[in-house]
Amino acid sequence: MAPGEVLQLKIDQVLSEDATGTLVMLELEALGARLVKAELCAQYIDHNILKADHRNGDDHVFLQSACRNFGIWYSRPGNGISHPVHMACFGIPGKTLLGADSHSCAAGSLSMFAMGAGGIEVALAMMGCPLTLVMPKILGVYLEGKLQPWVSAKDIILELLRRYTVKGCWNRVVEYHGPGLESLTAMDRHVIANMGHEMGAITSVFPSDDQVRSFLRQQSREEDFTELSADEGATYDEEEFIDLSELEPMIACPSRPDKVVKVKEIIGRPVSQSYIGSSANPGLRDFSIPARIVGGRYVPDDMSFDINPSSRQVLHELIKSGDLEKLIGAGAHLHDTGCGGCIGMGQAPASGHNSLRTVPRNFPGRSGTKEDQVYLCSPETAAASALTGKISDPRDLGMDYPDFEEPENLMDMRPLMEAPQEIPVKVELRKGPNIKSLPVLGKLLSVITGPVLLKLEDNITTDDIIPAGAEALPLWSNIPELSRHTFSRIDNTFYERAQEIEEDIFLVAGENLGFGSGREHAAITLRFLGVRCVIAKSVTMSYRKNLIDHGILILTLGEIGDYEVFNEGDKLQFFDLTSCTGDNGFLELRNLTKNKTVWLRNELSDREVEIIKFGGRINYINEGGFAH
Amino acid sequence: MAPGEVLQLKIDQVLSEDATGTLVMLELEALGARLVKAELCAQYIDHNILKADHRNGDDHVFLQSACRNFGIWYSRPGNGISHPVHMACFGIPGKTLLGADSHSCAAGSLSMFAMGAGGIEVALAMMGCPLTLVMPKILGVYLEGKLQPWVSAKDIILELLRRYTVKGCWNRVVEYHGPGLESLTAMDRHVIANMGHEMGAITSVFPSDDQVRSFLRQQSREEDFTELSADEGATYDEEEFIDLSELEPMIACPSRPDKVVKVKEIIGRPVSQSYIGSSANPGLRDFSIPARIVGGRYVPDDMSFDINPSSRQVLHELIKSGDLEKLIGAGAHLHDTGCGGCIGMGQAPASGHNSLRTVPRNFPGRSGTKEDQVYLCSPETAAASALTGKISDPRDLGMDYPDFEEPENLMDMRPLMEAPQEIPVKVELRKGPNIKSLPVLGKLLSVITGPVLLKLEDNITTDDIIPAGAEALPLWSNIPELSRHTFSRIDNTFYERAQEIEEDIFLVAGENLGFGSGREHAAITLRFLGVRCVIAKSVTMSYRKNLIDHGILILTLGEIGDYEVFNEGDKLQFFDLTSCTGDNGFLELRNLTKNKTVWLRNELSDREVEIIKFGGRINYINEGGFAH
Repeated sequence: MAPGEVLQLKIDQVLSEDATGTLVMLELEALGARLVKAELCAQYIDHNILKADHRNGDDHVFLQSACRNFGIWYSRPGNGISHPVHMACFGIPGKTLLGADSHSCAAGSLSMFAMGAGGIEVALAMMGCPLTLVMPKILGVYLEGKLQPWVSAKDIILELLRRYTVKGCWNRVVEYHGPGLESLTAMDRHVIANMGHEMGAITSVFPSDDQVRSFLRQQSREEDFTELSADEGATYDEEEFIDLSELEPMIACPSRPDKVVKVKEIIGRPVSQSYIGSSANPGLRDFSIPARIVGGRYVPDDMSFDINPSSRQVLHELIKSGDLEKLIGAGAHLHDTGCGGCIGMGQAPASGHNSLRTVPRNFPGRSGTKEDQVYLCSPETAAASALTGKISDPRDLGMDYPDFEEPENLMDMRPLMEAPQEIPVKVELRKGPNIKSLPVLGKLLSVITGPVLLKLEDNITTDDIIPAGAEALPLWSNIPELSRHTFSRIDNTFYERAQEIEEDIFLVAGENLGFGSGREHAAITLRFLGVRCVIAKSVTMSYRKNLIDHGILILTLGEIGDYEVFNEGDKLQFFDLTSCTGDNGFLELRNLTKNKTVWLRNELSDREVEIIKFGGRINYINEGGFAH
Repeated sequence: MAPGEVLQLKIDQVLSEDATGTLVMLELEALGARLVKAELCAQYIDHNILKADHRNGDDHVFLQSACRNFGIWYSRPGNGISHPVHMACFGIPGKTLLGADSHSCAAGSLSMFAMGAGGIEVALAMMGCPLTLVMPKILGVYLEGKLQPWVSAKDIILELLRRYTVKGCWNRVVEYHGPGLESLTAMDRHVIANMGHEMGAITSVFPSDDQVRSFLRQQSREEDFTELSADEGATYDEEEFIDLSELEPMIACPSRPDKVVKVKEIIGRPVSQSYIGSSANPGLRDFSIPARIVGGRYVPDDMSFDINPSSRQVLHELIKSGDLEKLIGAGAHLHDTGCGGCIGMGQAPASGHNSLRTVPRNFPGRSGTKEDQVYLCSPETAAASALTGKISDPRDLGMDYPDFEEPENLMDMRPLMEAPQEIPVKVELRKGPNIKSLPVLGKLLSVITGPVLLKLEDNITTDDIIPAGAEALPLWSNIPELSRHTFSRIDNTFYERAQEIEEDIFLVAGENLGFGSGREHAAITLRFLGVRCVIAKSVTMSYRKNLIDHGILILTLGEIGDYEVFNEGDKLQFFDLTSCTGDNGFLELRNLTKNKTVWLRNELSDREVEIIKFGGRINYINEGGFAH
């Protein structure tokens, strides 16, 4: 296979979490699914577990009923974050995995080929459809040497983010190889694979070696081990090199994961929150090492030292090992097991106070606090800074680096999940008052006419388009209500203005539109509000798919300077949708306000154009189109 | 002293929690306080710890700055619920305690004379003012016998609630005596003293005996022990008797704490949430016994088994003893240490699902879910029902009642609190954007004229007047914004209607107005919206004080049938405020709409009328009135 060729990938395992999973289940319903066909499907409850009112609990009841109906594993709230729990319970080297969460790529650490996708793609994968992909380039990252004490996996991926930025690995798979891997455990690799997504990578892949065998043995699943590695003398489209022994503690400054510097460059800045947890640092060692750093000391009175166990298994081991006692004794504030503050569900920092977090993302406002100042760092740096009350290089603590050994015979979490019935029976989907069936979307007419309702800069995240957080997340199963939050962080008049437009709505955007989380809500709410066409310099792969799946036409700005031709309020007209099909070069768009013609590029396949014409993938499939 | 005489009580210790404490600190500021004068003042952070956005964190920063400025102990979030933490760290037999939280009365379990009060009263107590009280009647409750296995302290107080209802102990202090006390630990007594408030009691008192000595010894504070008990042959105004050996597991049905039946009368009702925690069952045994019941088993997949540790010390002991491991292994969902779902901060049940809770109150909607169905029960009943998925009598589990022994040498939480400085310096109060200084309230004119904006039934709680919960609690430091939630559970047009009224506003109510929580917010928001007079059949003692302190005139319905004379919208006129002073029998009120005169009773003292005329106690004091 050469980069650019189209390939279809059989999907073995599929996961979803509750924030995105409610739409996945509604999509299975809309597609008329009966029983899922993938080898293993699992639904986790990790995002919406605060339960400020009935809505979260109603989502859980709904998801459980859907799991029973469709034959999907159901993991209750309190079991933990989908990615580490899935790895512990079900991860198998060499299998493919698709997940309705952008950090599903973390399973690359177990030598799975794992990706995040929008809900429709995930629902189709559950139904047994293969995934269509364009063969990416492979970036080989050669690791040698061994990390120094106080430096850990998070520092490796932060260093890569420093080098590659948030879009440097677009259309690439990152494959790690070299002797440096020997000393990186499966959970260390999880940290790296998780945040590979923050560089824009499709996924990251690690070999399946003794470290993976050890991981599976700890999980009492050694029989699931297969050795896998790149062929002797394999070559890569691009190559990168890291000497682990030269790395130092790194930190991403507010408010993007690629604003990375060495910790020592910014030591001394005051910190009032140190946050340990999330899918980016979910391993037992990511909690035990901080515990052993702070054990026997006290964090300052004005430090919020927040501990968010990643899984029931990790919490269980922290109890058994005495590490949780150390954390509690030092003044930590223990929170429940799940995504927590990483997605703005609680633990928002006070206004004007710096927060250090081991999480994967620090997009503006994602913490729940407007104009927040969130830094991303390793558990070592977070623990050291928790003790001192300011950004601190953990090497300056003047203590020995704590020992840590991975324990054997970890708790089996599967008995606390509901397995699909051997002979599943049809179960009614229990929809609470906040759960609304998918809106039925109309077809796209050939001529599209209407205003540019919003003009966006570069690097607009899906968080900017549809926020997570305590206010919006409970609405993710209710598109009409959720749509009120569209662009609320950027332009809180957008919803009202969109309501007043009776024509089609255009958006204009810069580079890297829709990076970050893979939430399809960032597409479906736009479509629900009448957006029919997005004109952008570039759109991330996952957001592009979501826009198409929900019937939004994507046109690409070709000529330098064309972005400047558009102003908010300009009335545009796109003449002829049929012109998008076939390899027909540039497409004509009229700016009626400026009385000007702009030539745009079509990067959509014929099939994608067909899906858009039908008003989205569900319409397309339900009217006889091929699912994949 | 005979019942009815006025007494003044020196207050030794004062506590507040964060939900009410922000106003206490603003009141200290408004009163021009410098350093507190009571022996010990402590501020706890236990209510607003979800931090869905910047507001909770800003409150903590504010409270900490105020503690530093005024010389108050500051207990950080994660330390736990004010009442058990205060008992563990500071409780001393024979001392008096006033707290800005209605469950402050729980310290009666340590033989303290302890009460809840509104913020102004608490601020004044911090400043060294005595508390003025009318000598209450004493209800002596004689306990004999010993509880059977599977029956615990919660069942005692539920039985008393069954007998006395939510207003049966009005103007009474409940004093427990008799040989049955021997087998009740200090934390068992805490359960009983806590929920004494739910019967309307001013407080509950227990002797200081060997059980109290043991408690203090476990806290490494045996030197604080003093033996205290009623005089030999003491008599009581009223007497009650309970043979503990005859008690069975009890349960309060939705949605009032006095709707109590035996568990066995309603076994089998489906349950989807079992909730363990809160100030009503805060002892280590209240978590350890459930852990030992569920240990080695699994709770059903659709059971939300929620554990809310009451204090850092309890959490620490649960880790050390292995009991937390048992809970986690059985499928419990561990939450952070604090008030949590008891006050609607998370853990709301799904719509239409029954919830069993060890908390003190089950008022409608208090869980965060409208039309909730919350039952109150013992930890034993909650754990048994968690295992079976339906309301279950724990005696039917068919297992031996778990052993439990109180451990010695418990963790000292005081190093994780910030003590007042030896020589305190003035510190700027750090007010985040959501923290608004107290509204300045105007004086009351002699003639009051305006409409009855709302007519209320009997038993309206302060939760009905101003809700807690995830939406409203972050606004408790911002009266203008909080006032939008006034009566939102009963009449969500109230705020808008009040905004439109330019005259004075009257409210009419039935019996027992303002029972439940002692939040002064339920008074100050009314006053802020223009309510100048409340006409009621009866008002609870704490709410009565809060109304007066914030300048609202209270008139009492005298004649049977007078309640019926008023309709919503009737325009009323109260002629002459000076007629309220002195012992002048009935007061004349004109119902202008009905063209009718109604005669009302004045139960206010001359001083109270003066306070009301000044527009509230802060005005009164700042203009030279006596503080107490």
